[in-house]
Amino acid sequence: MSLIVLGTMAYDAIETPFGKTEKIVGGSATYVAYAASNFIKPVQQISIVGNDFDPTIIDDLNRRGVMTDGVERVPDKPSFFWSGRYHMDMNTRDTLVTDLNVLADFNPQVPDSYQGAEFLMLGNLMPKLQQQVIEQLKTRPKLIVLDTMNFWMEIAMDDLKQVLTMVDVLLVNDSEARQLSGEYSLVKAAKKVMEMGPKFLIIKKGEHGALLFHGNHVFFAPALPLEDVFDPTGAGDTFAGGFMGHLAKTGDISFNNMKTAIIVGSAMASFCVEKFGPERLQEITKKEIDERIQQFVNLVQFDIDLV
Amino acid sequence: MSLIVLGTMAYDAIETPFGKTEKIVGGSATYVAYAASNFIKPVQQISIVGNDFDPTIIDDLNRRGVMTDGVERVPDKPSFFWSGRYHMDMNTRDTLVTDLNVLADFNPQVPDSYQGAEFLMLGNLMPKLQQQVIEQLKTRPKLIVLDTMNFWMEIAMDDLKQVLTMVDVLLVNDSEARQLSGEYSLVKAAKKVMEMGPKFLIIKKGEHGALLFHGNHVFFAPALPLEDVFDPTGAGDTFAGGFMGHLAKTGDISFNNMKTAIIVGSAMASFCVEKFGPERLQEITKKEIDERIQQFVNLVQFDIDLV
Repeated sequence: MSLIVLGTMAYDAIETPFGKTEKIVGGSATYVAYAASNFIKPVQQISIVGNDFDPTIIDDLNRRGVMTDGVERVPDKPSFFWSGRYHMDMNTRDTLVTDLNVLADFNPQVPDSYQGAEFLMLGNLMPKLQQQVIEQLKTRPKLIVLDTMNFWMEIAMDDLKQVLTMVDVLLVNDSEARQLSGEYSLVKAAKKVMEMGPKFLIIKKGEHGALLFHGNHVFFAPALPLEDVFDPTGAGDTFAGGFMGHLAKTGDISFNNMKTAIIVGSAMASFCVEKFGPERLQEITKKEIDERIQQFVNLVQFDIDLV
Repeated sequence: MSLIVLGTMAYDAIETPFGKTEKIVGGSATYVAYAASNFIKPVQQISIVGNDFDPTIIDDLNRRGVMTDGVERVPDKPSFFWSGRYHMDMNTRDTLVTDLNVLADFNPQVPDSYQGAEFLMLGNLMPKLQQQVIEQLKTRPKLIVLDTMNFWMEIAMDDLKQVLTMVDVLLVNDSEARQLSGEYSLVKAAKKVMEMGPKFLIIKKGEHGALLFHGNHVFFAPALPLEDVFDPTGAGDTFAGGFMGHLAKTGDISFNNMKTAIIVGSAMASFCVEKFGPERLQEITKKEIDERIQQFVNLVQFDIDLV
């Protein structure tokens, strides 16, 4: 099984109540690849970087089984750059700087070597570019997952609705689910969103966990209560990477296996927030991942005898 | 096993985005009793009501196995009255009216017939009154659970800290846990609170579920995703009633059984919010409770094979 990942590879500068960074590597596809490559090889990256992008990151990803044939390198422009500041609750943030740079000209191309992939992860990007990648695939993947955000709902809702008809799973946060559906209740919002195309909806709620909806079924995954959330940047993409990695590894796209995949994604995301940027993801071991998943099992398991 | 419940029996007038009520029966001890009496008899109520309190409510509670020997009836004053308005998110509310009425003179007395109870639920009230009830008991109950709120942290923190040294379990919401401990991280907050006396801490997070802390252990219980949350009044007390009811029924106060008790409490709370006031609690059947608890099992269960 192989997994194609579309998304940004970029630089971020982050301020949190616990500290701040200079420019560090980031981008949705970077986080997805670091997380997913623990479970599945190859991860086939489609992205664009500028002349400032550290080649040792590409080398590191390649060593982890991430193919970068689909990563365009632009010689005369810098990489996409985002800077933001988180507040104490870590669920809200202010964007300080958004420099599109190379992203302004991004025209994603699927390399021939990627054709035939069974899994496609469309990271948060302009909906037209997400659609363009789907349309370049000669065989429709077994599972297409799309991540998006409020920004595209505000400036490209029609394009977003178009690409939603082409995907299987949508990943958004709670306020985005409300915005997309016009419903406050997440249960009602989920029903409306699933009428727009995706048969599965995952609503990410940060420290409050995540919900998976499918037909009349719902699954609730907790977030691990942590002493410190150091930097939430990339946590959603890391979640997506763990989720896709588990599905691609097992090849099983049933609702039941998606529940497990969400726990794997939540476990990966819980590592991501422990340090700035993808640093923690670069150092974790298989043993740590197993232990963390076991913590999630312990966190929610209970015995019940009906009264 | 028997359960003593201290708290208010009162009237509320409620506005939500879905409607509003005239004066309807409410009060922490009312909700606890309606919930707990599904699991354990007798529930031994300690409260105070005025000349306006509907005697058919007392009759209804008596029929359910709730003793009201400890409920004082004041002939020349009305019952405690609270009026509030909920916002769309149902987690925040404005208090419109608080008329203490009989509550201003409340001097709770434990009837002889209640002595020897194994379980004590101290509903949200002035901390000195909660302490007074503990001190009147000739035998210390097997488990003492205390509910409180931010109001007492602001005007009676020393009294609250005193009574905290005397109880086993504290029930608060997330912002109250932060206020009591001075810590933003709920994991750090829990550690500090458990140094103040209670060996167990339950943090209620409304639609985001609840956390149970004990030593280095933590358990996460989901809330049931609902199409409509009609009226959250009493949901926390109903949760407490289901929690205590299950513990008193089983007589088992281990961490493991508390996890199950929290699921039972969450299931009961999910009924409470479906209609205004305690109306839904007055009509539910044992079969509905069993089905609801099964929904919680389905909501969180997953299969995992470590990678």
